[in-house]
Amino acid sequence: MRNQVYEKRVEKSSRLMLAEGIDILLLTKPSNMFYLTGDGRLCSFAMINGDGQVALGVPMTDEDDVRKQAHFDHLATFDDEIGMIHSIADFFKQFGISKGVVGLEYTFLTQAMMGMVTHPHAKPDEVTVKNCTDIMSQMRMVKEPHEIELMREAAKVADAGMEAAMASLGAGMTESQIAGEGEYAMRQAGAEGFWRSYVSSGARTGIAHGLPTNRKVQDGDIVMIDLHPIVNNYSSDICRMACVGKPSAEQVRAFDVYQEALQSTTAKAIAGVGMVELEDTLHGVIRDAGYGDNIFGPSIHDIGINFEEAPLPPGHAFFHGEKAPPPLLENVPIAIGNCGIYKEAWGVRIEDTVVVGKDRPMVLTSYPIIFEREP
Amino acid sequence: MRNQVYEKRVEKSSRLMLAEGIDILLLTKPSNMFYLTGDGRLCSFAMINGDGQVALGVPMTDEDDVRKQAHFDHLATFDDEIGMIHSIADFFKQFGISKGVVGLEYTFLTQAMMGMVTHPHAKPDEVTVKNCTDIMSQMRMVKEPHEIELMREAAKVADAGMEAAMASLGAGMTESQIAGEGEYAMRQAGAEGFWRSYVSSGARTGIAHGLPTNRKVQDGDIVMIDLHPIVNNYSSDICRMACVGKPSAEQVRAFDVYQEALQSTTAKAIAGVGMVELEDTLHGVIRDAGYGDNIFGPSIHDIGINFEEAPLPPGHAFFHGEKAPPPLLENVPIAIGNCGIYKEAWGVRIEDTVVVGKDRPMVLTSYPIIFEREP
Repeated sequence: MRNQVYEKRVEKSSRLMLAEGIDILLLTKPSNMFYLTGDGRLCSFAMINGDGQVALGVPMTDEDDVRKQAHFDHLATFDDEIGMIHSIADFFKQFGISKGVVGLEYTFLTQAMMGMVTHPHAKPDEVTVKNCTDIMSQMRMVKEPHEIELMREAAKVADAGMEAAMASLGAGMTESQIAGEGEYAMRQAGAEGFWRSYVSSGARTGIAHGLPTNRKVQDGDIVMIDLHPIVNNYSSDICRMACVGKPSAEQVRAFDVYQEALQSTTAKAIAGVGMVELEDTLHGVIRDAGYGDNIFGPSIHDIGINFEEAPLPPGHAFFHGEKAPPPLLENVPIAIGNCGIYKEAWGVRIEDTVVVGKDRPMVLTSYPIIFEREP
Repeated sequence: MRNQVYEKRVEKSSRLMLAEGIDILLLTKPSNMFYLTGDGRLCSFAMINGDGQVALGVPMTDEDDVRKQAHFDHLATFDDEIGMIHSIADFFKQFGISKGVVGLEYTFLTQAMMGMVTHPHAKPDEVTVKNCTDIMSQMRMVKEPHEIELMREAAKVADAGMEAAMASLGAGMTESQIAGEGEYAMRQAGAEGFWRSYVSSGARTGIAHGLPTNRKVQDGDIVMIDLHPIVNNYSSDICRMACVGKPSAEQVRAFDVYQEALQSTTAKAIAGVGMVELEDTLHGVIRDAGYGDNIFGPSIHDIGINFEEAPLPPGHAFFHGEKAPPPLLENVPIAIGNCGIYKEAWGVRIEDTVVVGKDRPMVLTSYPIIFEREP
């Protein structure tokens, strides 16, 4: 039931687990389950022991579908929540684990879900819990060559989405309709889904999380579009801006500064670079141009199966319950340009998906960066 | 800074808080923040004390935007995660709370976020934590008349999405493209966003969570489409099915049984009915038709700002960290038809958004239920 990709990953997870003093992983985050078994789905769980044995628990409806897709050693199905709890208990028994440590995803489990997976009918009394977030982050950080290829496909779909969203720009379009154009094009181009789209216009470009609203774009507005397709389980991230009409000289200047900051930072995405060094480069260019007080948001994040995963800059890593980032190795994909220059009445931001290279960075997203458009 | 709607809600939250022995609420779930202040955004928090004083903390970029939309007494802005923690500490001080109990959203906070809001630099040492999920659920369950009007608008948008998705059905379309048609139409019709769309076809209609894939619909396939627009912050939920070509006699029979189950259950959505009684009605019709072993999933859920909120059926409530549901009152909107009849090679399901009425149910979603379509 195993192909080599998953077998190797599971073996590695067992080694990391033992080094951390964890006897068994109990995962419910779909992306982590996908990484180790080739299948991640909602309302399911995976348990992996120190011998590399993989047990899956899935809804009773999903048995055939899971058998087609997942690599595992044991499979249980359940009827409902109580059944799920009992399946977990059964696997603890089957793996002979009555004491020791179970690794749980502290960055994914809510208090309520935590109560469920550690319910006295699920987890043996003498088994204690430990955060296993960093184990999965360590494993997923450096991408295998076939993962990079999948991300390249996702980037093409991001470009197609951006092209459609940009083509739709005009006074009278709502932010939500512009988002719809991008999303529609991404599904047409092969995305099976996407993470939250951001489209903001006018003064709303100046806020930290510009989710689309029914605000209508007006002549002279600048518009920020940020898209994140999922293609064959891998994500991409692109942000571009354009002005409907003529931007102000100050907007053009800020945009040019941001573009320079992005280019300088991208140029440094070479194996061995630190996340902090990249962030300092990006912030440095912006600060030197006089916009030091207008920076907001973590400037860089890793990307892969999730559109935001570890490594993250230190502050954001803490917020997400991740360890501080190690130097970046070859084949770590990152999104550069996640922070913005935010003035009172508007903001600017450009973002690309970039793979850290041995000798040079590989920029995956390629939609042209053009602020002023033909009338 | 307050209008009456939010003033009343905040007053009520203070009363419920004191009854539960909670001195202050610390909320980060956008829908809960929106309910009490008229504004819910990412990476922000709201603190509400027993005197009905509301404090907000938001990114520094968002100050003007928040002032335009939110009803509050105190506002802090922060630069980053550390600043957020310090803002929380400042409000504890400003409200004079150095001991007592802070209410937190156990159904929303991950372990990592929990670590952040209860960080020693945020929460005073002698303040203990308690789950406040049920307080917010109690408040949000029965909708005010203007909320019902907003949900009626959301239901119209759901109907428009379903119409477009159904119109696109045909062999060769991918599940993802069909989802894209529905989503595009919903954004055109006024949705500012939507929750996860489900589209599954062929054997995939038989799995519990049929997220869209790039599988191409084939002649003779049945297709399940489940859409959830968000319009002016309120949600709707609709699921319909159709066959591309001629369904089997067994499929038609199961579909008819499900439709009868849905109608019987909807007829009972009258004030005073229990969630379990509704679930038993739905399951009863299905069981009586011989499909008792093929039922999976919680059959009903509340809907409002979130597309799935309390009350929930008992098992699912437990999973979501909510209390068992009380009898349903007038103006509680529910989605009926969240479970399915799942056979090995296919499944059927139909879902509507229905408001529990004083004398009769009010069905908000109205797209026709037609399984066999013209060729």
